[in-house]
Amino acid sequence: MNNPENKMETTLPTIGVFDSGFGGLTVLRALMSHLPNARFAFIGDTARLPYGSKSRRTIARYAAESAQFLVNEQGAEYLVIACNTASALALDAIQDAVPVPVLGVIEPGAESARAASRTGDVLVIATDATVQSHAYAAACRGRGLRALEKACPLLVPLVEEGWTGALPSFGNVAEASAAQAVSASPQVAVTEEVIRIYLAELTAEAAAQGMNPDSLVLGCTHYPLLRPLLERAVPAGMRVIDSAEATAEAALKLFGRQNAGKCPPSAQDPSTQVHCFATDSVEKFERLGSRFLGQPTGKVELVDLDG
Amino acid sequence: MNNPENKMETTLPTIGVFDSGFGGLTVLRALMSHLPNARFAFIGDTARLPYGSKSRRTIARYAAESAQFLVNEQGAEYLVIACNTASALALDAIQDAVPVPVLGVIEPGAESARAASRTGDVLVIATDATVQSHAYAAACRGRGLRALEKACPLLVPLVEEGWTGALPSFGNVAEASAAQAVSASPQVAVTEEVIRIYLAELTAEAAAQGMNPDSLVLGCTHYPLLRPLLERAVPAGMRVIDSAEATAEAALKLFGRQNAGKCPPSAQDPSTQVHCFATDSVEKFERLGSRFLGQPTGKVELVDLDG
Repeated sequence: MNNPENKMETTLPTIGVFDSGFGGLTVLRALMSHLPNARFAFIGDTARLPYGSKSRRTIARYAAESAQFLVNEQGAEYLVIACNTASALALDAIQDAVPVPVLGVIEPGAESARAASRTGDVLVIATDATVQSHAYAAACRGRGLRALEKACPLLVPLVEEGWTGALPSFGNVAEASAAQAVSASPQVAVTEEVIRIYLAELTAEAAAQGMNPDSLVLGCTHYPLLRPLLERAVPAGMRVIDSAEATAEAALKLFGRQNAGKCPPSAQDPSTQVHCFATDSVEKFERLGSRFLGQPTGKVELVDLDG
Repeated sequence: MNNPENKMETTLPTIGVFDSGFGGLTVLRALMSHLPNARFAFIGDTARLPYGSKSRRTIARYAAESAQFLVNEQGAEYLVIACNTASALALDAIQDAVPVPVLGVIEPGAESARAASRTGDVLVIATDATVQSHAYAAACRGRGLRALEKACPLLVPLVEEGWTGALPSFGNVAEASAAQAVSASPQVAVTEEVIRIYLAELTAEAAAQGMNPDSLVLGCTHYPLLRPLLERAVPAGMRVIDSAEATAEAALKLFGRQNAGKCPPSAQDPSTQVHCFATDSVEKFERLGSRFLGQPTGKVELVDLDG
């Protein structure tokens, strides 16, 4: 079942997508847009989040269990780790745990920054746990870039509260532009001010270090929902690099070519293209998840990985 | 060791204080102010937070383990559950697990609202998990009050970011007044606007239900750090009920009298009055905890409750 060679040529390839919560649904959304002829199984390990406060060993064990569920129970032939913490701390452990290709979100984000940056200096915003891992700085350094990272702990709860304004419709995340109309509610004004404060602190720190940054990497799977607001807030000429988008492009290169001959020509029904699982809080997942996915998540199935 | 009768008359009583994180340090702060002649052992079960997304059975097991640590290892003769979720869902289980008196934060908060309210209508702000438990509504209903609860998920991260402005000095939390100077930074302005939005939504909903609320209960252990801002934001004449303060007053009545003869007359050194433990993230606990406690936490000791 795990060997693509045994499958019929007309069978759609299945890509497993894993996150500690449901933020990774932004990555799934980008994947669905870039790989319309794949099937997706997504699992959010919501019972054990947040991963950020846990040790590397514990995160590796949890992530490996989710990866094995996707491969062994759901027949995933490729895995995307749509979780910055797990990508930073457990990618090797996941690759050891399953016999399929595994892609994280950090390397594609850094690669996209390398392609975009002319000055070689980039800014990264992320959660506290991702910043403390310095995984983006390391991935950028490996590509000859200097990166300055900043934790922005208020952005995830602002996104989860929905204080983000009108969002681009499904499939248009990549095209969301700074000019796009954003409803000017008091809630959105709060989010805009929080973004302004964080970016002012970050650019001041970059200037103090003699950097000349021209790219901003979104190092958290919640942040694509803030992309229109972030694009309006960055200094003129600065590129916003969406690592969800970058990961989907990398997945298309890595998985798409291998499946070029297997994909039927017609697009499938989006409502059956994805099957979501969670280890807890299924109701919250369904309620908030559709905003991240850009369409209803459908019925989210509860699974117990502890057994 | 657990029987106060066996202790020498000059021995200070030990009060154990438990939270899933370090927010409960605001309760400890109020307890230290009201019971200056007690010793305190505080444990934050930071490895397993947040409790809010976990089942009642799991929360009861985790909380019982912390309670047993405080009683069996630290000699606590009384316990305060400085955690709204555990108070709401596991107070009975904790009382069954240890042979000492146990006090939660919810009943004292509701009792304080009963004493303060003239209209019988009260508002409660709390985390999503506490609101979903409806524990404050039930405790208020049992006292003939109508309560309207609202989840305010942005307030905890705003407090943890420190966007709260200047705070009253140690011991003066109870006296913090609306007139107190609060530094008008852009960060504090964000917090003020978030509070304004939440309170506007809550009072509009109360009016729609025909309520006439005159009291606002702070149903989260992080919120006492927002008390000066909240007192400036509530409608004129509305009382702010701090459940940390209410819990300390209840503890004084419940534990204080029993120990009146045992307390030495002189106040002790605050730096040795409290001993803090955490199950993970000791560094974050020490870094943020002092703001909640109003003084340095001292060295926080890592303990493993899983063993």
